[in-house]
Amino acid sequence: MKPPNKARPLPDQISELTTNRLSIYLRCLAELDVAGVETISSQGLAEQFKLNAAQIRKDLAYFGEFGVRGVGYFVKDLRRNLRQILGLDRNLRVAIMGAGNLGMALADYPGFRQEGFEIVALFDVLNEKVGHLSRGGVNIYDVRQLKKVVKTDRISIAVVAVPVSAAEHVVRQVVAAGVKAILNFSPGPLAVPPGVKLKSVDLTQSLESLSFFLAREGADS
Amino acid sequence: MKPPNKARPLPDQISELTTNRLSIYLRCLAELDVAGVETISSQGLAEQFKLNAAQIRKDLAYFGEFGVRGVGYFVKDLRRNLRQILGLDRNLRVAIMGAGNLGMALADYPGFRQEGFEIVALFDVLNEKVGHLSRGGVNIYDVRQLKKVVKTDRISIAVVAVPVSAAEHVVRQVVAAGVKAILNFSPGPLAVPPGVKLKSVDLTQSLESLSFFLAREGADS
Repeated sequence: MKPPNKARPLPDQISELTTNRLSIYLRCLAELDVAGVETISSQGLAEQFKLNAAQIRKDLAYFGEFGVRGVGYFVKDLRRNLRQILGLDRNLRVAIMGAGNLGMALADYPGFRQEGFEIVALFDVLNEKVGHLSRGGVNIYDVRQLKKVVKTDRISIAVVAVPVSAAEHVVRQVVAAGVKAILNFSPGPLAVPPGVKLKSVDLTQSLESLSFFLAREGADS
Repeated sequence: MKPPNKARPLPDQISELTTNRLSIYLRCLAELDVAGVETISSQGLAEQFKLNAAQIRKDLAYFGEFGVRGVGYFVKDLRRNLRQILGLDRNLRVAIMGAGNLGMALADYPGFRQEGFEIVALFDVLNEKVGHLSRGGVNIYDVRQLKKVVKTDRISIAVVAVPVSAAEHVVRQVVAAGVKAILNFSPGPLAVPPGVKLKSVDLTQSLESLSFFLAREGADS
């Protein structure tokens, strides 16, 4: 069921595992670019960053032919292409729902801006928070202004960082305001209508994979 | 290269993708258990939670034979087995490095306790933070007490939630204190010695997969 090289597959056919790997390749290329490396083969990429060369070639083949036989990839070109494929050439504007500890931490998270995401607003329901700024200077708005700010500030992604009990309600507000992509940090299932993409970050899952490692280590020793 | 059913594979042979799926199965089983469902087939699990039945069977087969022909899985039993496989039956004790916004948010994150992780300590370098508590009651210690607290409080996992500039140094401190499993929230590469497992949570990657979705949506319309 491998799509042919030239036909662009529909978004649903590219799994999140693939886009996650594209993100990783992009980090590696950025590092190489900064280090002044001009070309690299899939084999070289794989060795230097502990990746899989065949997987790299397969992932990139979905989107076009980037390698040059005998040369490999041009680092700057492939980096620019990957940014474009991931839609990072458009400076996406992000709102954070919830100005609690998590929301404030995310508002100033250095990795976001680095990759071209701009956190333009925080939203909260508490009067004593509204009107204040995050340490990095992001304004905290009243959630009642959500619809207006989404429109005027051209916000396309909302990050949900509210308590579990409020998550469902906030997701509905965000969808009603016209946001089509949601990153959710609240544990538990959430539903969105078709045409809206919700991605949940399960922080517990990461701890569980460490727990698995520790359980196995203990079993071996 | 499928390992036989009975021989326990070494930890390295089970990928993080597999353990992440086990975490997901565990969430689903918990939901079914609470709802009073007693047995379910891999097909039923797959349909109800949008998973892949063959993948479920394959993942579980690594660890034993849990299904009963004509019945499926006993929900309570499989849930208990998965908790054991993931090492969650041991109430792992966790320290958080950095009592900034992110550290404080993680200290009180409800998902952790739910799955049996106990956040027992926060560590910071700032005098004005040391001695205070998180909202949920976790003590903030001076990082100079790390070695002692890790030992007396039997801490087995450290979560690194410090600024990028401090991450490398803090990881070294954590390793020196004898912690074998680290969950890192700082962007950028970090090295650990053999025998220590480091898992990095790349928050930007999640935003990038949403960006990819938005770019494709835009292209289609």
